[in-house]
Amino acid sequence: MTLRQLQDWFSKNREAILRDFFQFLTFKSISADPAYKPEVLKCANWLGDYLKKIGMQVELWQTSGMPVLFAEYKSADKNAPTLLIYHHYDVQPADPLELWKSDPFSPVVRDGVVYARGAQDNKGQCFYCVTALKALFELTKQVPLNIKLFIEGEEESGSHGTEEAIEKKRERLKADYLLVVDSTLAAAGVPGLTMGVRGIMTMEFLCKNASTDLHSGTFGGIAYNPNRALAQAIAALWDKNGRVKIPHFYDDVAKLDEDQRKLLDLEFDPEWTRSQFGIQALAPEPGFSPKESSWIRPTVEINGMCGGYIGEGFKTVLPAQASAKISCRLVPNQDPEKIYKLLVDYLCAQFPAGFELKATYGHGAPAFRGNFHSPIAKTAAMSYEEVMKKPCRYMLSGGSIPIVAKLAEACGGEATLMGFGLDEDNIHAPNEHFGLDRFEMGYLTMGRIFAHLSEKH
Amino acid sequence: MTLRQLQDWFSKNREAILRDFFQFLTFKSISADPAYKPEVLKCANWLGDYLKKIGMQVELWQTSGMPVLFAEYKSADKNAPTLLIYHHYDVQPADPLELWKSDPFSPVVRDGVVYARGAQDNKGQCFYCVTALKALFELTKQVPLNIKLFIEGEEESGSHGTEEAIEKKRERLKADYLLVVDSTLAAAGVPGLTMGVRGIMTMEFLCKNASTDLHSGTFGGIAYNPNRALAQAIAALWDKNGRVKIPHFYDDVAKLDEDQRKLLDLEFDPEWTRSQFGIQALAPEPGFSPKESSWIRPTVEINGMCGGYIGEGFKTVLPAQASAKISCRLVPNQDPEKIYKLLVDYLCAQFPAGFELKATYGHGAPAFRGNFHSPIAKTAAMSYEEVMKKPCRYMLSGGSIPIVAKLAEACGGEATLMGFGLDEDNIHAPNEHFGLDRFEMGYLTMGRIFAHLSEKH
Repeated sequence: MTLRQLQDWFSKNREAILRDFFQFLTFKSISADPAYKPEVLKCANWLGDYLKKIGMQVELWQTSGMPVLFAEYKSADKNAPTLLIYHHYDVQPADPLELWKSDPFSPVVRDGVVYARGAQDNKGQCFYCVTALKALFELTKQVPLNIKLFIEGEEESGSHGTEEAIEKKRERLKADYLLVVDSTLAAAGVPGLTMGVRGIMTMEFLCKNASTDLHSGTFGGIAYNPNRALAQAIAALWDKNGRVKIPHFYDDVAKLDEDQRKLLDLEFDPEWTRSQFGIQALAPEPGFSPKESSWIRPTVEINGMCGGYIGEGFKTVLPAQASAKISCRLVPNQDPEKIYKLLVDYLCAQFPAGFELKATYGHGAPAFRGNFHSPIAKTAAMSYEEVMKKPCRYMLSGGSIPIVAKLAEACGGEATLMGFGLDEDNIHAPNEHFGLDRFEMGYLTMGRIFAHLSEKH
Repeated sequence: MTLRQLQDWFSKNREAILRDFFQFLTFKSISADPAYKPEVLKCANWLGDYLKKIGMQVELWQTSGMPVLFAEYKSADKNAPTLLIYHHYDVQPADPLELWKSDPFSPVVRDGVVYARGAQDNKGQCFYCVTALKALFELTKQVPLNIKLFIEGEEESGSHGTEEAIEKKRERLKADYLLVVDSTLAAAGVPGLTMGVRGIMTMEFLCKNASTDLHSGTFGGIAYNPNRALAQAIAALWDKNGRVKIPHFYDDVAKLDEDQRKLLDLEFDPEWTRSQFGIQALAPEPGFSPKESSWIRPTVEINGMCGGYIGEGFKTVLPAQASAKISCRLVPNQDPEKIYKLLVDYLCAQFPAGFELKATYGHGAPAFRGNFHSPIAKTAAMSYEEVMKKPCRYMLSGGSIPIVAKLAEACGGEATLMGFGLDEDNIHAPNEHFGLDRFEMGYLTMGRIFAHLSEKH
């Protein structure tokens, strides 16, 4: 299956492929909000049917959360190597809806770019891979490669059920190689392998000082306002230079050795983030560059903060309670539950006596780092270079794909992350989008990876 | 019109009066939310028709905001004194709706207490006064007293239009006495005159550091999180003892002279606020008692605070912006606009360079203090005591009735505030309620005030 063959196949099938891709994008498979569970399931079933049609055996692995879609192609060749590929079919919530230029679940193409929730993360990346498999099965009579697709349904909401599935189905997940296709290029037009992801810990925190909202006239000066107390506790998380002040927060952070750091592309252009995202004020950890702060250092972020009246107009209320959604991005060898305990203890210590405090652990996953020199990393890099005609770079990701470490361990093979995302795709934000040129390059690169792995053996 | 006559009249008419009162409570006259404007107008028209039926001349004074309902009874007696009474027919928003035990706009009586938004503030207090007028006109052939009702429709949202109406209609508002009936008793069963209210300044503040919400993995460690910046700015408003740190904030605060302070009932029972409202942590200004902090000292309160994802589940977002709704309660002689400028300057100075900051002035009103020894204060105290059989106490209010100072100035007479509210009525909160026993006492007291003012002349 040469690059030429893959290109010809795509030209012939382009219209049908994009029609199917856009249908995939119409499902509101928002795993974070229980109200959308039926849509998540519809999405899984639709994709399962699609994979059956292209020639794979499909199973829906039920979990306590959203099901894992598992699809398998078994080669007739007993010596064929096995490739496990990871995707997810769930998406982030779409709000704030009013900031979308078009409906998040009615994909629209503007200037060769498709706009929709999930257009990139991860439905777009999933579907170019599925398309490459469709081409593989049509163009190759006897594929000397076993392929397993592991497509989870709750990547955006903690992967609790998915983790159960990995534990239960360890034998089915055995593979020589693992490709996690949910990552970004090094830059527009520049291939890049992501050799690690940060871990994550999410939590909610609530503080309460009354059984009811209070009149801010009657009680202003009497009752301690939970908004004030929460703001003070949040503000206390950093010292004046911006270093996290939680005791022992940095204790377990693994130092990146200098050899690896040299391979990494740590360049950062503040003008680019300014023009692309309007980002003005930066917040790197003292002593580290922005890219280092995002790749090899842990962070604390307040993802949501809320208390009192926030609707139209004004309400002179002194709220009963205030709350925050907080996450930490973690690096090797930080433990999510340990970090949770440190954070909760520290937050609680900031409140005046009497406050009722409640912390709730959300989800956690340790960081993952792969081997820069493994066969799968080399194959992926070579395929990228064939398609994109540029040297492949090595990166880490500031983001988290919670079950990467678990899946790599269960499959037993070498792992790498790759993908065709770009930071400016607005994943997790309004107007998420994905260039159709990248969709095609993703398809070609996956096709070439399949071809190389088939040749090798 | 003796107490006995008033009591007999009420016994005879009780059922019809309560039916009418409860109908008044069904209107969603929420002035803070423009969506409810039609309901506000319906409410004004309903009340206007009611006042016509009891024998008053009614006018609806249009303003740039909600109309003022003005009703007048002109005595045939040319020497009759004139009493101006203030109420408001608008109410606070009802959210959070899920915390109401019954629908806020379907009044329900449980154990002699009516539950509804506005049951006390101010529809309940307005309607016992209207009821006393109905009795007055039915029981007295020639009433030797001119009565003017000034019932505004935007007390809960800044009274901008109402202030215009006061300016335009100064001549129509001339009166010997002003009674503002929107206040509380000294305690359950204990009459109290409120000789002053705090002023208010409300504002919204927004900070922005990106043009879109960002992925907290990709940008955590790179972009400065607006939630963090806002929390730091809010936390900086107080020193570690709880004194407001804004430079010059306390500069214009009038000192209460010792004579007046002695008349005031400054007792405060933390056990009572604990049992009634679950309030645990108190926040008096250092050097002042809780009651002093609420009555004679200014405060800053964060009435609403919001940034990022606050819905169900979790969204690992780094928000584009965060915002707060902030108010100050003011005392004589603080100027709302001056305080606004001090607050905005101070807040802005707390943010890292690059942040886009936007402050919006909401509404403002200076504090008001009346004369403890005026004829109207003495008449009100005497009437209270006849009905409640306890000595009347003198208080100040921590709350604000924005146009009191303006109305007192326009009418040219002596003013006092009174009412039958209690702190535990949950005004501005879910499950607002008002005891029907207090409704009746309010009616009797107003009736006796009318009788005394008629006799005097």
